[in-house]
Amino acid sequence: MPFEITNELIEQVTSLIQQRDDKAILAFLGEEHYADIAELLDELSLDEATYIIKLLDSELTSDVLMEIDEDVREKILKNLSAKEIAEELEELDTDDAADMIAELPEERQEKVISEIEDEEHVKDIVELLTYDEDSAGGLMAKELVKVNENWDVLRCVREMRAQAENVTRVHSIYVVDDNDTLKGRLSLKDLLVTSTKAPISEVYIPKVDSVNVHEKAEDVALIMQKYDLEAIPVVDNDHKLMGRITIDDIVDVIKEEAEKDYQLAAGITEDVEADDTVWEHTRARLPWLFLGLIGGVGAATIMSGFEEMIEKHVILFFFTPLIAAMAGNVGVQSSAIIVQGLANNDLKGSIGNRLLKEFSLSIVNGLILSILLFVFTWFLYGNILTSSAISISLLAVIIMAGIIGTFIPLFLDKRGIDPAIATGPFITTSNDIFGILIYFWIAKSVLGI
Amino acid sequence: MPFEITNELIEQVTSLIQQRDDKAILAFLGEEHYADIAELLDELSLDEATYIIKLLDSELTSDVLMEIDEDVREKILKNLSAKEIAEELEELDTDDAADMIAELPEERQEKVISEIEDEEHVKDIVELLTYDEDSAGGLMAKELVKVNENWDVLRCVREMRAQAENVTRVHSIYVVDDNDTLKGRLSLKDLLVTSTKAPISEVYIPKVDSVNVHEKAEDVALIMQKYDLEAIPVVDNDHKLMGRITIDDIVDVIKEEAEKDYQLAAGITEDVEADDTVWEHTRARLPWLFLGLIGGVGAATIMSGFEEMIEKHVILFFFTPLIAAMAGNVGVQSSAIIVQGLANNDLKGSIGNRLLKEFSLSIVNGLILSILLFVFTWFLYGNILTSSAISISLLAVIIMAGIIGTFIPLFLDKRGIDPAIATGPFITTSNDIFGILIYFWIAKSVLGI
Repeated sequence: MPFEITNELIEQVTSLIQQRDDKAILAFLGEEHYADIAELLDELSLDEATYIIKLLDSELTSDVLMEIDEDVREKILKNLSAKEIAEELEELDTDDAADMIAELPEERQEKVISEIEDEEHVKDIVELLTYDEDSAGGLMAKELVKVNENWDVLRCVREMRAQAENVTRVHSIYVVDDNDTLKGRLSLKDLLVTSTKAPISEVYIPKVDSVNVHEKAEDVALIMQKYDLEAIPVVDNDHKLMGRITIDDIVDVIKEEAEKDYQLAAGITEDVEADDTVWEHTRARLPWLFLGLIGGVGAATIMSGFEEMIEKHVILFFFTPLIAAMAGNVGVQSSAIIVQGLANNDLKGSIGNRLLKEFSLSIVNGLILSILLFVFTWFLYGNILTSSAISISLLAVIIMAGIIGTFIPLFLDKRGIDPAIATGPFITTSNDIFGILIYFWIAKSVLGI
Repeated sequence: MPFEITNELIEQVTSLIQQRDDKAILAFLGEEHYADIAELLDELSLDEATYIIKLLDSELTSDVLMEIDEDVREKILKNLSAKEIAEELEELDTDDAADMIAELPEERQEKVISEIEDEEHVKDIVELLTYDEDSAGGLMAKELVKVNENWDVLRCVREMRAQAENVTRVHSIYVVDDNDTLKGRLSLKDLLVTSTKAPISEVYIPKVDSVNVHEKAEDVALIMQKYDLEAIPVVDNDHKLMGRITIDDIVDVIKEEAEKDYQLAAGITEDVEADDTVWEHTRARLPWLFLGLIGGVGAATIMSGFEEMIEKHVILFFFTPLIAAMAGNVGVQSSAIIVQGLANNDLKGSIGNRLLKEFSLSIVNGLILSILLFVFTWFLYGNILTSSAISISLLAVIIMAGIIGTFIPLFLDKRGIDPAIATGPFITTSNDIFGILIYFWIAKSVLGI
């Protein structure tokens, strides 16, 4: 990769902008890849970035705009006129154009749309805007290559060439009947290898996977991964061909989904990146920390109810953090396994079986760790009763934490709530409190206080 | 998707196998997608699955074998002869064939390779086996379509047709010189649209992204995502064309990477799935829990050093779980942001700047939470000195946890260690201990004991 963003490069571009040396900027950036230019613009000031967007050709800058950081794009679009935005949109595929328009404030959307000259393009974009962004309709583009089953191969190649002009990557050629119903597919390779004048109806492959326009984006991703597809046609309820989803959009869905789950597990509620502002980070991180604070105050309140016992057996108190931490760790482990299993759609068997398995697993882990803790505390304090109280509690807490960690994501999923929110501070905090409660309650029984 | 694994379907297949009704099984499964058959086999017993693999055509079963669960594949391959495995390998692309061979015990590998009849295929597979599995060489397939820059378009199409037979998806046609050095590319679309007899050297696009054969798999994934590529050619140090990586392999890399990071953050050390055995889960979960146990014992030891203070101010003890939990939560949040930034290669600026930012962020979050805690505890216990001790400690602990959480993954990354291991129990446990130590130390100073 020859293009690398260095401080020299940024200074060079900045000084060219200050000198208003448009010719040199065009010569310097006009041939670069849009992804590289986007990376460069992320480093420039808003005015400089806007200057370059206005200067370069829309064919290039439309892709640059789709690639840069959402916050930066929003600001740049504010600096462009409706007409200028419309020019960028003309160059984009319908799916990207619809995504970009959807980010504009509502009153601007109509103005921008009215400035787009290509009526077909406008119609497609307006249609795409009606779909939920997390559905197949929200992901698909209207650009595709389709041929009629009644054509012969010659006509097909001719019509295809015209259509292919607007399609970045062809992948498959879809075969439809006179009502636009999806009948099958042809690959470019087949077309190159077959050199016949036979009608398409005799050549095409009638087996073609498709997804409904209202299918959830995550499910489309699972289907495309399972069947190793690089593109999939989208149909409506009457099996009419509506659009096409390509694998690059699915890669984005997979990445976003994974990042969201990861952040939720880490207790971050909003989609933030390392380079967002302190304020954005505060907003994303504070809610779970606040929950943790409430949990901690809850734990303190529980503990103050056992003050008398603690004064007699202060050792018990020393192990509260251990019990709380183990409850949290076990809970996060179990819930992470369930969340991943749900996301990959490979969780088999009933909830009952799953809880039973987690129960056996907790007993194995719990026994090993409790015995270790028993031996250690006995050696350290020489009081068999205290050691028993602490170890039995640990076993009970591990079992409880495993079951809660398994149950909560399954329960949320059944209720249609994203199970990923169950991992992280939610499980940690609730298990902390339950863990401490169980701990003191068992200790009280064992020590007979 | 018409094919769904139901209990009836499994029973039907099982009973056909018992009746040894091969014809019915072939009619029933012979036309299904390999991914569906793989899903079915995961539900059958090992003997039943092996029976079906032996019965169906290798062209289908080779893909089925690549798709099923690794553990099941290992067992089925044990039941097949070297000759039978060789037949499966003949049908696979070189990258999949090499992956499958690599899973066999070493003494079997040679035997199987010697049974493959296609010598070209053997040579390619043996070459691929020499590359690290996490490198571009380990991901690439030898199957690709390449043409010589000195040919004309006509000859190109003819040669291409022959080559394309062996290539599942063509994507790009690579242009090489007489030394096999990568010069550029042509797309199938270009070839369909251009109908000239011009030499290839005048038609091809000289700009082509490529990766070195020793490039890390993760970096290949980043490049292909950044430039929205569906296939990328792999070259050696002399820029000689060695193979090709397609986007479906990259999707697997991205998913595996994300799942691994997620599991590490949740304290799971080995790649386990919900349906693995209790024993496999124990092995994956116990190490971090053991670390947590050690941490808890460490915390207990620290606390016993402050026994005297605790007896005077038992309230302090009630808030130990809160302090420990907050330290853990803040640490996990900060490290998750860094781990993600590193994975996406979008972390800019120096370590110093990053720590400074986390410092400001921790002060904001810390002040808000500490003031809340101060008000609450003051209201509850009416002792301004105790409330101050607890709140000041919380602020200090949050700042420390944020800095440790930011520093550790950056440090690990610099040392060439996967920063993802820093999240989860590692951060939680070390922050627990540090947090408690700081807490009691500050409390001691504030209360003047």
